[in-house]
Amino acid sequence: MRTESDSLGQIELPKDVYFGVHTQRALNNFPISDNVTHPEIIRAFLEIKQAAAQTNATSGNLDRSIAKHIVSATKLLLKQPIDSRMFPISDIQGGAGTSTNMNVNEVIANIALEQIGRARGDYQRINPNDHINMGQSTNDTYPSAGKIALIRLLTPLFESLESLVDALGNKADTFSTTYKMGRTQLQDAVPMTLGNSFHAWLKPLRRDMLRITTARDALYMLNMGGSAIGSGINVSYHYQVHIVPNLASITNLPLTQAHDLFDATSNLDSFVALSGALKSLAVNLSKMSNDLRLISSGPRSGLHEINLPAKQAGSSIMPGKVNPVIPEVVNQVAFEMIGFDATITAAAEAGQLELNAFEPIIFKSLIAGIEHLTRAMDTLRINAVDGITINKSRLSQDIDLSASFATAMAPIIGYQEAAKIAKESLRTGKSLRQIAENKGVFSEDELAHIFKVEDIVINARTPEHGLVLHAPKAKA
Amino acid sequence: MRTESDSLGQIELPKDVYFGVHTQRALNNFPISDNVTHPEIIRAFLEIKQAAAQTNATSGNLDRSIAKHIVSATKLLLKQPIDSRMFPISDIQGGAGTSTNMNVNEVIANIALEQIGRARGDYQRINPNDHINMGQSTNDTYPSAGKIALIRLLTPLFESLESLVDALGNKADTFSTTYKMGRTQLQDAVPMTLGNSFHAWLKPLRRDMLRITTARDALYMLNMGGSAIGSGINVSYHYQVHIVPNLASITNLPLTQAHDLFDATSNLDSFVALSGALKSLAVNLSKMSNDLRLISSGPRSGLHEINLPAKQAGSSIMPGKVNPVIPEVVNQVAFEMIGFDATITAAAEAGQLELNAFEPIIFKSLIAGIEHLTRAMDTLRINAVDGITINKSRLSQDIDLSASFATAMAPIIGYQEAAKIAKESLRTGKSLRQIAENKGVFSEDELAHIFKVEDIVINARTPEHGLVLHAPKAKA
Amino acid sequence: MRTESDSLGQIELPKDVYFGVHTQRALNNFPISDNVTHPEIIRAFLEIKQAAAQTNATSGNLDRSIAKHIVSATKLLLKQPIDSRMFPISDIQGGAGTSTNMNVNEVIANIALEQIGRARGDYQRINPNDHINMGQSTNDTYPSAGKIALIRLLTPLFESLESLVDALGNKADTFSTTYKMGRTQLQDAVPMTLGNSFHAWLKPLRRDMLRITTARDALYMLNMGGSAIGSGINVSYHYQVHIVPNLASITNLPLTQAHDLFDATSNLDSFVALSGALKSLAVNLSKMSNDLRLISSGPRSGLHEINLPAKQAGSSIMPGKVNPVIPEVVNQVAFEMIGFDATITAAAEAGQLELNAFEPIIFKSLIAGIEHLTRAMDTLRINAVDGITINKSRLSQDIDLSASFATAMAPIIGYQEAAKIAKESLRTGKSLRQIAENKGVFSEDELAHIFKVEDIVINARTPEHGLVLHAPKAKA
Amino acid sequence: MRTESDSLGQIELPKDVYFGVHTQRALNNFPISDNVTHPEIIRAFLEIKQAAAQTNATSGNLDRSIAKHIVSATKLLLKQPIDSRMFPISDIQGGAGTSTNMNVNEVIANIALEQIGRARGDYQRINPNDHINMGQSTNDTYPSAGKIALIRLLTPLFESLESLVDALGNKADTFSTTYKMGRTQLQDAVPMTLGNSFHAWLKPLRRDMLRITTARDALYMLNMGGSAIGSGINVSYHYQVHIVPNLASITNLPLTQAHDLFDATSNLDSFVALSGALKSLAVNLSKMSNDLRLISSGPRSGLHEINLPAKQAGSSIMPGKVNPVIPEVVNQVAFEMIGFDATITAAAEAGQLELNAFEPIIFKSLIAGIEHLTRAMDTLRINAVDGITINKSRLSQDIDLSASFATAMAPIIGYQEAAKIAKESLRTGKSLRQIAENKGVFSEDELAHIFKVEDIVINARTPEHGLVLHAPKAKA
Repeated sequence: MRTESDSLGQIELPKDVYFGVHTQRALNNFPISDNVTHPEIIRAFLEIKQAAAQTNATSGNLDRSIAKHIVSATKLLLKQPIDSRMFPISDIQGGAGTSTNMNVNEVIANIALEQIGRARGDYQRINPNDHINMGQSTNDTYPSAGKIALIRLLTPLFESLESLVDALGNKADTFSTTYKMGRTQLQDAVPMTLGNSFHAWLKPLRRDMLRITTARDALYMLNMGGSAIGSGINVSYHYQVHIVPNLASITNLPLTQAHDLFDATSNLDSFVALSGALKSLAVNLSKMSNDLRLISSGPRSGLHEINLPAKQAGSSIMPGKVNPVIPEVVNQVAFEMIGFDATITAAAEAGQLELNAFEPIIFKSLIAGIEHLTRAMDTLRINAVDGITINKSRLSQDIDLSASFATAMAPIIGYQEAAKIAKESLRTGKSLRQIAENKGVFSEDELAHIFKVEDIVINARTPEHGLVLHAPKAKA
Repeated sequence: MRTESDSLGQIELPKDVYFGVHTQRALNNFPISDNVTHPEIIRAFLEIKQAAAQTNATSGNLDRSIAKHIVSATKLLLKQPIDSRMFPISDIQGGAGTSTNMNVNEVIANIALEQIGRARGDYQRINPNDHINMGQSTNDTYPSAGKIALIRLLTPLFESLESLVDALGNKADTFSTTYKMGRTQLQDAVPMTLGNSFHAWLKPLRRDMLRITTARDALYMLNMGGSAIGSGINVSYHYQVHIVPNLASITNLPLTQAHDLFDATSNLDSFVALSGALKSLAVNLSKMSNDLRLISSGPRSGLHEINLPAKQAGSSIMPGKVNPVIPEVVNQVAFEMIGFDATITAAAEAGQLELNAFEPIIFKSLIAGIEHLTRAMDTLRINAVDGITINKSRLSQDIDLSASFATAMAPIIGYQEAAKIAKESLRTGKSLRQIAENKGVFSEDELAHIFKVEDIVINARTPEHGLVLHAPKAKA
Repeated sequence: MRTESDSLGQIELPKDVYFGVHTQRALNNFPISDNVTHPEIIRAFLEIKQAAAQTNATSGNLDRSIAKHIVSATKLLLKQPIDSRMFPISDIQGGAGTSTNMNVNEVIANIALEQIGRARGDYQRINPNDHINMGQSTNDTYPSAGKIALIRLLTPLFESLESLVDALGNKADTFSTTYKMGRTQLQDAVPMTLGNSFHAWLKPLRRDMLRITTARDALYMLNMGGSAIGSGINVSYHYQVHIVPNLASITNLPLTQAHDLFDATSNLDSFVALSGALKSLAVNLSKMSNDLRLISSGPRSGLHEINLPAKQAGSSIMPGKVNPVIPEVVNQVAFEMIGFDATITAAAEAGQLELNAFEPIIFKSLIAGIEHLTRAMDTLRINAVDGITINKSRLSQDIDLSASFATAMAPIIGYQEAAKIAKESLRTGKSLRQIAENKGVFSEDELAHIFKVEDIVINARTPEHGLVLHAPKAKA
Repeated sequence: MRTESDSLGQIELPKDVYFGVHTQRALNNFPISDNVTHPEIIRAFLEIKQAAAQTNATSGNLDRSIAKHIVSATKLLLKQPIDSRMFPISDIQGGAGTSTNMNVNEVIANIALEQIGRARGDYQRINPNDHINMGQSTNDTYPSAGKIALIRLLTPLFESLESLVDALGNKADTFSTTYKMGRTQLQDAVPMTLGNSFHAWLKPLRRDMLRITTARDALYMLNMGGSAIGSGINVSYHYQVHIVPNLASITNLPLTQAHDLFDATSNLDSFVALSGALKSLAVNLSKMSNDLRLISSGPRSGLHEINLPAKQAGSSIMPGKVNPVIPEVVNQVAFEMIGFDATITAAAEAGQLELNAFEPIIFKSLIAGIEHLTRAMDTLRINAVDGITINKSRLSQDIDLSASFATAMAPIIGYQEAAKIAKESLRTGKSLRQIAENKGVFSEDELAHIFKVEDIVINARTPEHGLVLHAPKAKA
């Protein structure tokens, strides 16, 4: 064991740990979650510390040799996977992220001390607060690290989203002339193509991409340089001007500095906006998954329009059963994201005065949301969408038997008369065509038009497909 | 009483009502809420019917004299306030809005029939479905009417939001050199100005303005011309091309037609996005209201930094008590909006296949959210923000007694030494200045700098204010 | 116009209004919602004021003749419907209900003054605060009035819930031997009866009844006598002891007094619990409505197992279409309640120290939830459940064609062999019976058992129905 | 590598894993979360399999020697910590838990096979589905395992809750005569004791204990014996009758069997109810944490009534700052639980027909909620509540300076006159006592009464403390 102390007193630590007194206290205070702070947050923190050391050295505030050791320590740490034994604090923590900032300061200090042959905890030469944290506060480093982490975790999400949209688009092409019944309120409406369905699933995802991108772009703006509450206390002019450009260069991200650092420190609306955009994606994915499960229902007692690829046995007791397990897992990830949004909303609203102390739960929720949605979209694409096939005979049979042609009759004989024919069909089981032919009120041309699914489906947006319809003659 | 019938059979109606059988059935089916469909939805519906009649007449599908009477009926109805006896259906209704569309069709038909001397319900000459509804479906008219209503209701919201931002900006100017203690996690941090606070409250509102504007702009895109499920069934090419421009002209709004009418009919993500943006506004208003209530707490046993104008006696039993009733009502409207967002999310997720049947509750929730937020911002501005005054002596006393100057000492003597001084001050009750002077470790210049609030507060963003700070000397 | 004043100054009022200065200020401060405070809250307030006057008179604190006039005024007001011109304050209001309490005090005072021939606003003789409000605070009267209102509004909810459970029970009886396919994850599982379905819909409603009753019972406990913050300041011992029994007698409700009046004043967990129970009801009603819409889907391209009664034309463009409008409206009321619960949670969490100032939005949300759920259950019962019929041939066809019999084969030939048969059936379109007979692995008796739906369905809970199953022989 | 196959075909597995084909497929299908299924669910599953094997052996359906090996395998697995390499499937999974059930079946089978010297995957002798899963379905085992896990995880929650209530009660005793200002709406109200505050914090927790207990008790009722969809297909009568008692004996829990197994299989209202009760606890803990942070605010510019124990340095830049990190982490756990409730609500509502496929996300959310709340309550008790101290001089000064005595004046001189005195005090800064004495309207006795805090605070519930108050004399 070794001893470290802070203003609250002395504390014993395992001899060989790289962290120090502040981390140890946090471990005692926050034994909450089974998960530690996400490695991407730690990585971003390391980059921030590196940028700060370089900037402070250039400004003349920080001894160049100390800065050199800090930079070298961060580079060492960034080269390898983040080690949870070095950064062991629960991702749910009080203190607005101070513990994680302190943790990073301590580990860097001890690695730097090691480089110059000093013992761990011997902070006289290189001090976690005075040197590693110079010009910074948790108030600006923690949200900045969180933003950088989120930005990076969104990249795979965009890739997965784009791939999913592509896969849906391919299916839309494949099924562009596959006619099927459209339904409103689960009741037979009028025909459409399965391609239309796929387009209707993918279009909102494209809009989500735009919405999430807009929300992501707001994260590029950091409050670095604000130090405590955005005041910029203990920050040199040189640091103020150069810290964000230097960090942008290290992270290779187009980071900018907020104009109003008080605003940027106290308000979390950019996270609420991101959460809202992710929730929209969740809702759209869930709706699509609901539809996929519905139209693949059966095989005998369901709609059974399409087949999802069989991915695993569906039941431990019912042999041969196959279930839509992939969309089901997407639904659950969507429900989880809806809950994350509720958590984030509550946490953002609860912020008081110059700082919102509840960023840790916001970061945890956003990160889990992003990662789970990303993976859910991948499995949805690979294990479901890509392998969808159709049951052609079922699709055409549904159209043939439907009463939807009554809609096409209405412009000719009026809504009320057409309704009577539809009802007769349902009552008697006769097809609409049969009844229509018997009625003798339609011309040959009209009959041909009414029952031509292609004309119904391809909506009248080009002159060649457009119908010239005539309203029923007004009656005296 | 008079009699009307539909495909379900005959029904008796009060003789003089302008609505017909479909409306009457809806009244029986949906006795849910005490509120009828919002008048702005009805107004938009009337404009849609007018545009449709004109477009159908031009295309040759609708008899010009019928069209003339339809247009004239809609103009008559639009000239006067919407009469809830004509449009009496509950704002919460099943059927995806069909009842409201039918209601509008019926009222227009009966007013048009009145104009040509026909009895109500004598739909041979002018028929609600065949003529008023020609080329339309509830699937396209109802969401379009809802969007137009929302767009219009957002205009006063933007005005109120802008006025509130202006009012906050004025106060920020007034208090731009009013120094006060900044706090993180409710604990004394470092000084700032009250102007900084007002800026931190107004900036997220400006971003909300942008977010809501973006969400609003998506509503300009309508699915008119899609008729049933977006298929465009029973829609002429002429109508397809001209209905939205004609409607844009009548409504004086920059409306456009969706490229993919199936998508535009089945997906409600534009409403989810609007709801999310309104929720962000709610969260920001609530946070500000929380802060206002907190720093005006007291008058004796609170922070008591500012005074909200006294607007009413605060207690029926405690004489002289005055409460922050205006921010309190804003908080409640914000909590309501958070709930509306949950409702809208659930309703959007539940949409199935080609149509989301749950638009009525979505419109109800969005409209109430918009109206209540608008009015809440007005009362917040007029009855609270505009009249805020400060308690100057309290503000300066707080700074003088605070331990926040220890932060400015840290770059000179190190974090740990500064912490000891802060602790000593708290333990002994001596001011930091007293202790610092006694210590004898600071030069005159350093002391002057440490206790100069202006230097601390004005963050170091311009060279003239920037501090050239020196890190504590490394010790051997 | 007449003039009234309070500690904030003079104010002009319309001459003939019964309310006074405090109400007028509230009207100016809270122009938020289009709805006034619910009449049941006003009614309960009037009863509280009556009970207080009687109790104060008996204790000797209140002049008996003043008490007499107060009682007489409340009786007059309770005899007629609550007049929103007397009680015009928005149901969303700041001030923790003070305005409504003041409003009630003022109206009672002015009616009492009228009785003794004094002018409105001449409060020397009978004073809203000193006499009507004697021994009370908004802190105790407002939550108490809210609780009494909620208790009463729950009575019709219980009736509607019970009637709905009965209606579902009747249908369960009717369909107790109507066999149908059961489904898990929307995929064919094994047969069951439609009666089983109705039982599965009604049982959770019975549990909701119990949960809501438990939550309701907690509302009987009032904090009357606590006056400001539960301290009992300005409350006589006599009043303390007798106010709740007297109020119980007037309201005819088994009201009790909280043991800890500070607790009862500051905590709103009883409302959170009620909201949670109502949300559970909403979830169960929504799930049932989803199921009803799903199994009535079609008529041609859906499951079409049951028919909901046709209640209105389903489309303005598609003749003969009929939609499940009644369950759809129930879904929306359920989504609304889910949102109300989010609002109530946020408002309850936001309460600070000795009082939660956000009761108004909580009462508004709970009351709307209760009323809408009540009416939704009524329309669901009357317009949907009572009229449900079945499509018998569809139900039996579904069973006959299903692969579900493979499950009954598994104990005989093993899960894996049975799976092969199920797959063969799906691939070839042959029925399981056909394949099973061809296989020659089953005895006559086994075949009879495997395909006897009754044996599968009636679960093995009584010896006479119980199967004696034999595991597949272990193979060497 | 070794090979296994199911009805979908062959698959390669690492040679030495204990799981089989179904588990491997699940790993491919659900790479969603970083967490595997909770060990308590696996433990409960193992107990269920043990009970089933014993019951099936007794009924004669399962070969006794196979049963013996199954029992012995489960005992072996239950003796050691659950090994995530054996049970590696993501806690978020599609398929309604089938994968986890299959996983357990496979591991038990392979361990049993090992015992009899057979190779892994050689399921001829002991088969995962035919033997381990005999009489069961995922439909009944998965929810049953989840319930048992939840019941057990609630035990530490109850202990932590009870300890926290005790700790709060101790503090209530300690501070039972510590007078302080009470506040409503953050404005000074009337005095109370700090003991009253602690009681007001602990009482709702006691009610939560009751609510959670009620919700927990509903979990004892299992749907074991229902097999697929509650039908009891492939279940012998003996098994039906004995499985739950046998499982009760093995788990040592008072488990019972649901009367209606269809209901118990399809409805998840018992989880919604538990979630609601946990959310109530979260709301109450969050409210208390908000209060603790508020009244410990300062040290100079806050309410500073109490001190929370200093648990860690509060800032990386502000020396000597100490923050309320423990209540802050409790707030975040509460916000997380509010989000979990939203997720659970969405998942429960989405259940369709005979099964809710979304139990995995419900179990994940409930378990995380229970564990985090448990740990949050522990740290709140140990690291905050137990160490709370008061700032006595601040408390009495607040009372002395307050205008709250005006309330005690009102019964003597009337509300409006008392309001004037309160206003005068605030305007002039004179104490109420000073003004009251100067006024000359109060007798000595009255003055003594008005300013006797003890009389105000101890609410008038016992005759000896009760005030005999006299209403102001009616004026002519």
